[in-house]
Amino acid sequence: MKKQKLHIVKIGGNIINDEALLTSFLNDFSALSTPKILIHGGGKKATEMAAEMGIKPKMVNGRRITDKQNLEIVTMVYAGLLNKKITAQLQQNNCNAMGLSGADGNSILAQKRLVKEIDYGFVGDIDKVNSETIQVFLEHNLTPVFCAITHDKNGQLLNTNADTIASEVAIAMSELYKVELNYVFELKGVLENIKDENSVIKHINSKKYQLLVSDGIISDGMLPKLHNCFNALKKGVHQVKIGDASLIRSDNKRYTTLSI
Amino acid sequence: MKKQKLHIVKIGGNIINDEALLTSFLNDFSALSTPKILIHGGGKKATEMAAEMGIKPKMVNGRRITDKQNLEIVTMVYAGLLNKKITAQLQQNNCNAMGLSGADGNSILAQKRLVKEIDYGFVGDIDKVNSETIQVFLEHNLTPVFCAITHDKNGQLLNTNADTIASEVAIAMSELYKVELNYVFELKGVLENIKDENSVIKHINSKKYQLLVSDGIISDGMLPKLHNCFNALKKGVHQVKIGDASLIRSDNKRYTTLSI
Repeated sequence: MKKQKLHIVKIGGNIINDEALLTSFLNDFSALSTPKILIHGGGKKATEMAAEMGIKPKMVNGRRITDKQNLEIVTMVYAGLLNKKITAQLQQNNCNAMGLSGADGNSILAQKRLVKEIDYGFVGDIDKVNSETIQVFLEHNLTPVFCAITHDKNGQLLNTNADTIASEVAIAMSELYKVELNYVFELKGVLENIKDENSVIKHINSKKYQLLVSDGIISDGMLPKLHNCFNALKKGVHQVKIGDASLIRSDNKRYTTLSI
Repeated sequence: MKKQKLHIVKIGGNIINDEALLTSFLNDFSALSTPKILIHGGGKKATEMAAEMGIKPKMVNGRRITDKQNLEIVTMVYAGLLNKKITAQLQQNNCNAMGLSGADGNSILAQKRLVKEIDYGFVGDIDKVNSETIQVFLEHNLTPVFCAITHDKNGQLLNTNADTIASEVAIAMSELYKVELNYVFELKGVLENIKDENSVIKHINSKKYQLLVSDGIISDGMLPKLHNCFNALKKGVHQVKIGDASLIRSDNKRYTTLSI
């Protein structure tokens, strides 16, 4: 049986922090006619909120640690403020959005990251995405909007990387749908030359990916992002694209497409 | 056709502020075998959070005003922190809870309260509860957990009284289910003598209600609560009970039952 298309879009901080850009993106997202899922990160708001409350970010070896107090803040900001703001804006556009954390409907199960060199605190690594529950929502024309909070089924909420949520949700939904996964970030795509915003690499396959990594063209933050993309493709996601907020517009032709 | 029973329970600040009481209540709630809905208020947490951020509650004539900053705080605390904490705890009990604001699935539509003598700010009066969407959740064994935030379908979130949400959801669901509505608060029921916590009035009908009001036995905060109860009964809710956290336990016999 031919699978129906499902469009999964992850947006990052650059869009969430920019009111006008967010509104414009949500208008484009609402206009997508296929079943769809939105996944959003947190942006600067959680850091700002912590600062207002006099709480300093806790860092170990340059990595952010989610202690109890910081977990409360990200739960408030991601699952409360940002998730409901986005949901209400989509509702205004007649997109029947439903804001979700992984605890809601038991949709994303994770476990607290094991302590090796660093104890990251209340950070979750995803165990299971309940695709059947998500399918129920989609079949009733609801558009799930996931924030970057999951749970462990033992009453514990966990802070979870939004890029990883996007790829894991995309992989799980691929059993039921033909999934297109989009990562929307601040650049027009993966750049050949980081100093030239228009040097977008149109297409990257596994082989080219290895070359780009060994040449140092893909480095830093792009490494885990592309790792998530290729992992998704290997596990059944039909198509992955990376680009800026105009990525989901049908008139946009400049972005990076990935394939295995 | 005989309607299926639906149990709707509203809990207030006294339970939310007490970790042990909340856990014990959520265990009892999870054990209810009928389809069910939980509605929660905010407790002291929003006030504490505002204080930590140096924001003073805004009052006019003794009434709290929800300005933009306070709306952000209640959205974070009610829809984020408390709603997800309760949802995760219910999930631990194998109750497939789903935390919701009125914006999620467009489940509760409200309009900003009209400015008469006082401008209450971003406070919502309920227009419509989408019982069909809520029914979809219930039919898939999901347990909706509503916080006290609604929306106006124009992108605006609104702070809304949780007692009113409970009665309006109960009224709307009465078209589809035989609804029992429970208001759980700090007392064992409506008291004959406020100084005697055991002087619970077992049963109040419309006539007795009028007498109790004119005798001054029902006053202050109990007035709007009982108004909500009788409004619900008049509009089709099958049964309303008021009591403390043990109200939903099958072995509890001390509470107030209302009828018209």
